[in-house]
Amino acid sequence: MKKIPGGVTAPKGFLAGAAHCGLKKDGYDVGVILSKHPAQAAAMFTTNQIVAAPVVYSREAVKKGEIRAVVVNSGNANACTGKKGYEDARTLVAVTASSLGVSSDDVLVASTGRIGERLPVEKVASGIKGAVQSLGPEIQNGHAFAQAIMTTDTCTKEIAVMTRAGDQVITIGGVAKGAGMIAPNMATMLCFLTTDSSVPNKVLSRCLRDSVTRSFNRIGVDGHMSTNDMVVILANGAGGGPVIDDATMVLPAFRETLDYVTHHLAKEIVKDGEGATKLVMIEIGGAPTEAYALRVANAIGNSPLVKTAINGEDPNWGRIISAAGAAGIPLDEQRLKLYIGDVLVFEGGVSADFEREKLLEEMKKKEVCIRLHLGLGKSKTEFWTCDLSHEYVTINAKYHT
Amino acid sequence: MKKIPGGVTAPKGFLAGAAHCGLKKDGYDVGVILSKHPAQAAAMFTTNQIVAAPVVYSREAVKKGEIRAVVVNSGNANACTGKKGYEDARTLVAVTASSLGVSSDDVLVASTGRIGERLPVEKVASGIKGAVQSLGPEIQNGHAFAQAIMTTDTCTKEIAVMTRAGDQVITIGGVAKGAGMIAPNMATMLCFLTTDSSVPNKVLSRCLRDSVTRSFNRIGVDGHMSTNDMVVILANGAGGGPVIDDATMVLPAFRETLDYVTHHLAKEIVKDGEGATKLVMIEIGGAPTEAYALRVANAIGNSPLVKTAINGEDPNWGRIISAAGAAGIPLDEQRLKLYIGDVLVFEGGVSADFEREKLLEEMKKKEVCIRLHLGLGKSKTEFWTCDLSHEYVTINAKYHT
Repeated sequence: MKKIPGGVTAPKGFLAGAAHCGLKKDGYDVGVILSKHPAQAAAMFTTNQIVAAPVVYSREAVKKGEIRAVVVNSGNANACTGKKGYEDARTLVAVTASSLGVSSDDVLVASTGRIGERLPVEKVASGIKGAVQSLGPEIQNGHAFAQAIMTTDTCTKEIAVMTRAGDQVITIGGVAKGAGMIAPNMATMLCFLTTDSSVPNKVLSRCLRDSVTRSFNRIGVDGHMSTNDMVVILANGAGGGPVIDDATMVLPAFRETLDYVTHHLAKEIVKDGEGATKLVMIEIGGAPTEAYALRVANAIGNSPLVKTAINGEDPNWGRIISAAGAAGIPLDEQRLKLYIGDVLVFEGGVSADFEREKLLEEMKKKEVCIRLHLGLGKSKTEFWTCDLSHEYVTINAKYHT
Repeated sequence: MKKIPGGVTAPKGFLAGAAHCGLKKDGYDVGVILSKHPAQAAAMFTTNQIVAAPVVYSREAVKKGEIRAVVVNSGNANACTGKKGYEDARTLVAVTASSLGVSSDDVLVASTGRIGERLPVEKVASGIKGAVQSLGPEIQNGHAFAQAIMTTDTCTKEIAVMTRAGDQVITIGGVAKGAGMIAPNMATMLCFLTTDSSVPNKVLSRCLRDSVTRSFNRIGVDGHMSTNDMVVILANGAGGGPVIDDATMVLPAFRETLDYVTHHLAKEIVKDGEGATKLVMIEIGGAPTEAYALRVANAIGNSPLVKTAINGEDPNWGRIISAAGAAGIPLDEQRLKLYIGDVLVFEGGVSADFEREKLLEEMKKKEVCIRLHLGLGKSKTEFWTCDLSHEYVTINAKYHT
């Protein structure tokens, strides 16, 4: 498996484009991905009970299983906008379809940004036309799309990976956005994945679900689940290889490649978490089940006290232990073993005999690793989060106005 | 019912004292409450799985039902300290008992502060002796105790209330501490309540549980449950009235007075939440059950995105709706009605037609009121929290070192 340049346009037969229509002050705010050929499609959506109009639209539309294009706007989430918001989402789809010369059935729509305001549809329509005119297969086209879906993100999140499995080549490209409203449950951001392999949508759905469960569902910035989350994968078969289905030996390689892409993008989101200065990797081991481990990981990863301590490079391990204790499941203090980096800090119910200098070094790293062994079983999980900084408060105290 | 001056020493027969022994840089850090007569006692403790040594000790000791004294230190939580920590807690109890000339069985112990470090027992022992020497029944004695239990609190939290029920007088005094690690589950801080009414400990336990459920269990600062939480009530009968038990007409008045005290102290804790600039009252109505309402209230009250928006006086109601939607229970967007103060901001699935100026005024208030009606039933709940500020990050990024 090797990383190759580019993002969603790296696999064959995918074009991307972007334009600025004024939803954001500066930069691209409308993007389009087009597959030259009908692509098998699978998607996952937010599990928030309050669901944005584009999510309502796209989760129906994707059931057809074959898609040609995706249109996305940033700067306005088209959420909490009622029936009119739904009509607006349909209008975006219609404008995209007619600009591309495809059927409306072949287009998915996603939005991200401010909640509760109607989309300025005419503005976005002109943006869509601009984005369609700019469509191209180059790296910079994919990069323009990556910029178009950013909100409080400080950088684009893109990757493309190529694997050889026997004589078949698998190429998967991906792009994601997300910096705030990131919580571990379903997708929690926007992510678009492309591949020129030929994969039936039922297989694609299964691969996507498994991959998302261990990547985007294992990250958290602020524990606040969005109304607009969406992960879409398109497989257009333009690479020319045989169909990848349950019967093929190539499927594990496809899954592995997909996991690589989703893990990379998930970590990129956390690294760029609003105000983040550090990536925090939480590894819970010795749990009776993976769900048990995840519950402890969530309790630690979403504790503002743990996250501020990490921001201050403060080895306050008592907060980690007390967060674990409040996860709502039984733990045995005597069996817990807590490491920060390689330093054992807590064992047998008491502080371990560690070198404080070594621990401080661990806290100074850009990637802080917290490993907690529960001593109750053999299951484990990983969870990534970031620290909680002044910058997070600054960004979010004044986002709306 | 009227407020009277003082705190835990307001009811008859209670003495308080405090001393500085060096656990904190400045100010009192050891406090003692003594009842002149044996007092009926009830208590509630943290439900965190990781439990501090003083909690382990006191939750056994209180089962006896009759107590004379409470000793408390701040600056060190005596949590995650293993068997030696438990021995340290016992030593504090023994020193207190011998200084007071009472039995060790008659003393409860509580600690609050840093997690994971052994108590400097000799230091604390000398502090206890100083606190015992300073014992007195005056307002300033209770106030000194209130100072002795503070950690990141910026002010003391005390109240005393007197009620006349027929020809009986009920007096309840209370003191609490808590500013961080405040989450809605059990006590979430330290609180000591005194009354000179005569109330059997079984009745007292029931009254306390009901009162805590609707006061201290309805507040949150950072969603992080402490290892050291404890609420204790002592009833010494020094007021001279008849016994208050299930058969007496006075019990409802006693409950009402107790509720007044616990609600007051709970709100005081939130107002003084680490870095708090605003008190936020969340009222959830129209729920199928109270637990349902509480779940939604928790989701809103613990969302960093909601709390930073309130800090920025930003009427970002979309975050409130999306937090509610992520509470993990079914909601119907169409039936929701959201008010901020008196301003209806969301109804029928869309933004209401409100005056933005009026809404901005509500956001500028020191007490921001969020009312969400779910349209699904007749149950309701209240929950108090505070905003999330830069100051919270500053306080918590560097607490340990």
